[in-house]
Amino acid sequence: MASPKRRLQGLVAATITPMTEHGEINFSVIGQYVDYLVEEQGVKNIFVNGTTGEGLSLSISERCRVAEEWVTRGRNKLDQIVIHVGALSLKESQELAQHAAKIGADGIAVIAPFFLKPWNKDILVNFLKEVAAAAPALPFYYYHIPALTGVKIRAEELLDGIQEKIPTFQGLKFSDTDLLDFGQCVDQNRQRQFAFLFGVDEQLLSALVMGATGAVGSTYNYLGKKTNQMLEAFERKDFSSALNYQFCIQRFINFVVKLGFGVSQTKAVMTLVSGIPMGPPRLPLQKASREFTDHAEAKLKSLDFLSFTDLKDGNLEACS
Amino acid sequence: MASPKRRLQGLVAATITPMTEHGEINFSVIGQYVDYLVEEQGVKNIFVNGTTGEGLSLSISERCRVAEEWVTRGRNKLDQIVIHVGALSLKESQELAQHAAKIGADGIAVIAPFFLKPWNKDILVNFLKEVAAAAPALPFYYYHIPALTGVKIRAEELLDGIQEKIPTFQGLKFSDTDLLDFGQCVDQNRQRQFAFLFGVDEQLLSALVMGATGAVGSTYNYLGKKTNQMLEAFERKDFSSALNYQFCIQRFINFVVKLGFGVSQTKAVMTLVSGIPMGPPRLPLQKASREFTDHAEAKLKSLDFLSFTDLKDGNLEACS
Amino acid sequence: MASPKRRLQGLVAATITPMTEHGEINFSVIGQYVDYLVEEQGVKNIFVNGTTGEGLSLSISERCRVAEEWVTRGRNKLDQIVIHVGALSLKESQELAQHAAKIGADGIAVIAPFFLKPWNKDILVNFLKEVAAAAPALPFYYYHIPALTGVKIRAEELLDGIQEKIPTFQGLKFSDTDLLDFGQCVDQNRQRQFAFLFGVDEQLLSALVMGATGAVGSTYNYLGKKTNQMLEAFERKDFSSALNYQFCIQRFINFVVKLGFGVSQTKAVMTLVSGIPMGPPRLPLQKASREFTDHAEAKLKSLDFLSFTDLKDGNLEACS
Amino acid sequence: MASPKRRLQGLVAATITPMTEHGEINFSVIGQYVDYLVEEQGVKNIFVNGTTGEGLSLSISERCRVAEEWVTRGRNKLDQIVIHVGALSLKESQELAQHAAKIGADGIAVIAPFFLKPWNKDILVNFLKEVAAAAPALPFYYYHIPALTGVKIRAEELLDGIQEKIPTFQGLKFSDTDLLDFGQCVDQNRQRQFAFLFGVDEQLLSALVMGATGAVGSTYNYLGKKTNQMLEAFERKDFSSALNYQFCIQRFINFVVKLGFGVSQTKAVMTLVSGIPMGPPRLPLQKASREFTDHAEAKLKSLDFLSFTDLKDGNLEACS
Repeated sequence: MASPKRRLQGLVAATITPMTEHGEINFSVIGQYVDYLVEEQGVKNIFVNGTTGEGLSLSISERCRVAEEWVTRGRNKLDQIVIHVGALSLKESQELAQHAAKIGADGIAVIAPFFLKPWNKDILVNFLKEVAAAAPALPFYYYHIPALTGVKIRAEELLDGIQEKIPTFQGLKFSDTDLLDFGQCVDQNRQRQFAFLFGVDEQLLSALVMGATGAVGSTYNYLGKKTNQMLEAFERKDFSSALNYQFCIQRFINFVVKLGFGVSQTKAVMTLVSGIPMGPPRLPLQKASREFTDHAEAKLKSLDFLSFTDLKDGNLEACS
Repeated sequence: MASPKRRLQGLVAATITPMTEHGEINFSVIGQYVDYLVEEQGVKNIFVNGTTGEGLSLSISERCRVAEEWVTRGRNKLDQIVIHVGALSLKESQELAQHAAKIGADGIAVIAPFFLKPWNKDILVNFLKEVAAAAPALPFYYYHIPALTGVKIRAEELLDGIQEKIPTFQGLKFSDTDLLDFGQCVDQNRQRQFAFLFGVDEQLLSALVMGATGAVGSTYNYLGKKTNQMLEAFERKDFSSALNYQFCIQRFINFVVKLGFGVSQTKAVMTLVSGIPMGPPRLPLQKASREFTDHAEAKLKSLDFLSFTDLKDGNLEACS
Repeated sequence: MASPKRRLQGLVAATITPMTEHGEINFSVIGQYVDYLVEEQGVKNIFVNGTTGEGLSLSISERCRVAEEWVTRGRNKLDQIVIHVGALSLKESQELAQHAAKIGADGIAVIAPFFLKPWNKDILVNFLKEVAAAAPALPFYYYHIPALTGVKIRAEELLDGIQEKIPTFQGLKFSDTDLLDFGQCVDQNRQRQFAFLFGVDEQLLSALVMGATGAVGSTYNYLGKKTNQMLEAFERKDFSSALNYQFCIQRFINFVVKLGFGVSQTKAVMTLVSGIPMGPPRLPLQKASREFTDHAEAKLKSLDFLSFTDLKDGNLEACS
Repeated sequence: MASPKRRLQGLVAATITPMTEHGEINFSVIGQYVDYLVEEQGVKNIFVNGTTGEGLSLSISERCRVAEEWVTRGRNKLDQIVIHVGALSLKESQELAQHAAKIGADGIAVIAPFFLKPWNKDILVNFLKEVAAAAPALPFYYYHIPALTGVKIRAEELLDGIQEKIPTFQGLKFSDTDLLDFGQCVDQNRQRQFAFLFGVDEQLLSALVMGATGAVGSTYNYLGKKTNQMLEAFERKDFSSALNYQFCIQRFINFVVKLGFGVSQTKAVMTLVSGIPMGPPRLPLQKASREFTDHAEAKLKSLDFLSFTDLKDGNLEACS
């Protein structure tokens, strides 16, 4: 059975996998990265080897080494470390789950297999169950992202009776804008202590009002502090402030989305904001263009999102 | 110029077009329908000849007669009557706009043309502008529903500088779950008195927190009262009550969505709840199955959504 | 019953609707257009008011007048004239069908309704049946174009037993690349004298080998002669010649497709090749850019597709 | 440089990976499988670890062992053995490519990465190039299947100048119905000795006329003989016979497609036809239902596709 853990809540940063200019993993900066998240962004939970971490672009052995490094560096500093162990191959997913348990991770998460796809809810649950069974002591999270996987099974249906199949089930990362599905996940599982982690950063506020207990996303690497301010405003029912924070965050995301925003660009933005070199992505991705980086930097400054700027005064657009 | 109208706000019912068993329009019940909305549901605004009203399945002359009947019956009872005048043919759309002005409607709304599609924002605005120009005294609303039209132009980009092109522009019906786009529509147009009407009923609460000023939808025909209670709870910052109301509404929609829920089924549900015969839809739609109606009725009862039931006491699922 | 007509075969030009610079229909050039098709392109069948003809962008009265003009001008010159009478409104579709019969058209064609969509084959057949019944003496053709309508019902299933429902059914325009579906339409209806008209011009050869009896398309307005040469080569089993013709046509289409190719661009190309002014399209389309027209003209010349050029000699790419 | 190999042509069976009831690979029947393909189906080329072989559901080490077994068993019996080495991780794909070279495979094939997707043609080519470079002596094939990968880059554009980037490039498996794209791949690369292998079995005839030099597919495991008869008829320009064979094959595929047809069902059908136990698929797939298998068997018999039946005489539907 899963160790009785506090429910995962608040912000969870989907970690970037730092790389060298040659596309090799740059383990050396992960310690610094941990400190940055905790000290500068106030983020104490991480989601490792997910989409943002290029988890599926890494080899199995690389995924293990990355997970291990985060667990080692995060010990006594981070609150919870969830390792994404989803893979197209069930056997490899199980291998990753066993490894996560061995190194002392706090939980595992799995995405629906997305090449050959499960036909229905039961088959998907069976797949997830086989992975969860490989790490029977770890809390299990389902990573729901239908737009990327093409698996249209509704999360609300998946959760129906899931604890009988997967006793370690403790929540989901819901990366979709269907808040009927999300809302019903919350509504129908109130008695259970599941974590309902929303994964669409640019509209987190809309999920908080629908019962989200936390959030997993890439922007919390560099906008964690701002987002925490939004969470606090929401907690104290100061909705106009919460909305102002959300709009500020949206202005940035809305801007970069139009330039083309993905993992490559996230690496560039994180490097800009944190000063920690994230490096380029690995193929099939390509380094963000210089043009993107310049535009993003200008926007970050105009929004006062770079701690080292003091454009705040008299900056109409500034969001601090 | 547009007559200085109060901003359209609160709930707007997307009206059903009542039909006889032979698929002819049943004008005779529209007066009763108006009274039902006002007295039983507390809904005083309507959106006529939209998707729910099978507007595009009617002939142009039928659309005119339906609009006229609603305006006649709604006079001194309803607050605002918006006529959807969108059509694939610009000329027909203009004809409908002129007619709406002639009969004294309070506004017109237009969907993006969706067979031959505008390539970009400017072409779409030009199309909308030509329609708006046919009714220069009426407030103009854009009906944004990308999933149905296939027109992916973001609303936030469309609104950028729209008043220079369409001086009568007064808001939009936003029928999509992209709350980044919706949020930025609100954020970037705060100074303007636009109506930001959300069109995804099952997650209205998530749009209210993002700045929605009202809502247009089919469920407000029979769940208007419940939804008004949600709006009131939200107004007084009683979020847990607002969420309870939203969840109740979601339970119903979530249930019928799984059975297949569209205009046909909406007609059946409205007949059940209001007691006013809405009749079958017209081809290419088909009457909802008896099976659907039975299941829907049972669910409505279990949720205590049928005023004539008193299942409330001891009904755990009841939502009143 | 349908008048005993020769089966529609060979090439059918999907006619453009000529317009003035102000977007009004330019009836004056239709007579010249008829002569051009017959004399210069060897095309004697037409499909009026379809996608290429902006049929759904015209008002109902405009559609009637355009149909009438083609019938009048085409008399004793054209072989068969099919009028597309599809519309979102069943009543308007029936009105157009009656009009087509009245003016003496040779057949009617109908697209699946695509806003509110039929749930299944039977509902679609019922819709088509109601339209066909409005013109009981005219051959009826179904216009299958799932990519545009979003109606995924397979043509092969639609044809199963269709003559019991629609006695005037005489064939279909199949505008899709699913040649399993197309092949099974042919295979399962061999005894019937249906017309199997393929609608994807750039790969007509692949449908001929699968049993197509003809083709309907926009490129036959200006590449009819070339395509007829392909048909003749195929008839005489000269496959390498047929393939050469197909490749030539593909080179042009492949080139313009990359520039963005739709109805607007078709109007520009037809104006270039025929010398007859087709004018701009009507909103929601916009006139093809000057840049497109220049590139298209250069390509047409390089392929020797402009009759008035004699670049043939020593032109390696020339296709005549 | 690639060893000067005869161009891969004719039919290539996309091999199934036989499994035990417990989902472990059943290596023991692969020798028998090789003999069956050669002796019963007349198929002497195979494509290992592709979609049909559940390649992406296997671990890397399993993929290596499967490839090795096919190479060992196929030696001196099969003509060419192509190993699919595509993976989401470039490093793993390179590892598989090196292994394929080491064991003496005749070629490697790679699918476009489909989770994080290449933005454009150049990035995709760079990814493929890195894999090809890991096996510089092996012919390289690109596996184009946009519907499964979501990578919409046209094959014709990919092939433009590809030999400068990938000197070992020798052809593509084109699994799509866009025969404009396919035709232009052929047309623009006539001088080069590329293999243009079509991957949509149910419409192979339409690609043969467009210049296909061969085909890769799952149905050639059990319909190879029938398909070879179609190829021969096409070769001798007996088109009506070729079309009859294609229609026969389509009747079967059209039938099973309606029941739901994928890898699981292919395993069941191959077991039926060959008598060799293919076993169930591995999760996320599930064994084909008994109902499917019964219906498929009846259809195979009615079409006379089971060598052990002699329903031919007086069987109107029989296709032998």
